[in-house]
Amino acid sequence: VAFFEALGAEGHRALAGTIAAIRRRAPGVPVILDAKRGDIASSNRQYAIAAFDELGADAVTVQPYLGGEALQPFLERPDKLVYVLARTSNPGCGELQDLVVDGVPLYRRVARTVAQTWNANGNCGLVLGATSPRELEEIRGDISPALPVLVPGVGAQGGDLREVIATHRRAGSRALVISVSRSVLWASSGPAFGDAARAEVQRLNAELAAGLGG
Amino acid sequence: VAFFEALGAEGHRALAGTIAAIRRRAPGVPVILDAKRGDIASSNRQYAIAAFDELGADAVTVQPYLGGEALQPFLERPDKLVYVLARTSNPGCGELQDLVVDGVPLYRRVARTVAQTWNANGNCGLVLGATSPRELEEIRGDISPALPVLVPGVGAQGGDLREVIATHRRAGSRALVISVSRSVLWASSGPAFGDAARAEVQRLNAELAAGLGG
Repeated sequence: VAFFEALGAEGHRALAGTIAAIRRRAPGVPVILDAKRGDIASSNRQYAIAAFDELGADAVTVQPYLGGEALQPFLERPDKLVYVLARTSNPGCGELQDLVVDGVPLYRRVARTVAQTWNANGNCGLVLGATSPRELEEIRGDISPALPVLVPGVGAQGGDLREVIATHRRAGSRALVISVSRSVLWASSGPAFGDAARAEVQRLNAELAAGLGG
Repeated sequence: VAFFEALGAEGHRALAGTIAAIRRRAPGVPVILDAKRGDIASSNRQYAIAAFDELGADAVTVQPYLGGEALQPFLERPDKLVYVLARTSNPGCGELQDLVVDGVPLYRRVARTVAQTWNANGNCGLVLGATSPRELEEIRGDISPALPVLVPGVGAQGGDLREVIATHRRAGSRALVISVSRSVLWASSGPAFGDAARAEVQRLNAELAAGLGG
């Protein structure tokens, strides 16, 4: 979504058109807007309308830093899913997320707060990056296996797909979405980019199947 | 900026047009994009291009949760100012921002990290909400008086302008921007909304002058 927004008005039209194309070709596939929203409540109300009602997304990612009160416009939509950033997938994610609060790292505190408080409408999930498999394992002890988890960081960011699957199988995760963006979208910049993207997805699916069978 | 983005492609055009109008009518006034960006570095690179190069803003607000590494595309622009959210102005801001890390609340830890680490290019500022004057006073002890501070929360959010001025005068703040949005923009929804907005700005300016004289 960042790339589309950077393109301004044209990008917004492209994003809306992409979502419409997904709805036509794959109506059963949920659309997750990884927009990392995190404003005050009055602004989040507009962002929620944009994401859910205008663009028609099924889920959105949000920032935890302003607290649950600011996120209410997202949280009060029981028909939509709200993935809260807990442990992200970027190399420097630990700078704040690993700070220790009451004996546990901040990202675990965020995960617990989401599970115990913000999830009152049963529509919360967590973002737990694939680049931190150990952290991912620890956090699973704090939250229900039924809490949806979005796992970015496989592919261009270096996360290991098999390790992610193994960790979540041990934890009994029941609602896992592993997102892969750049290694598919930019599999090739040549004219056959569609074929290259398809080949990368097939490779990932085979790896996923092997991981699930193992 | 949230409101504009919620309006999609049309909103983006309106935002670009608003900034262009400000440049024409008041070329010396800095444009701060309160967009609260906070993605991974590769996406932030596009957001930085959008904010600084396409929209031509002078400054942007950003989220701290992903760490300084993710914010590099903003931080490496010495010609622009990057205001990092430390203590925000929303009612529930304390839920995460007040969590205690190494004996100090998280917002102070963020402020110190910005002042000591992220400000390597001398282009960082902090967002310190007007609704937390005591916290604002405490934080001022951790950072240089020269560090730019953006203070939202005066007006619709209930922050007291005189108290903000008094606090910052005691701390010797040298680069303070107090932002007032809704109480001016929505001073009236009637046909004379422009006159009502002007009257609200004049009222605020008088209060500001009284506070500075006091």
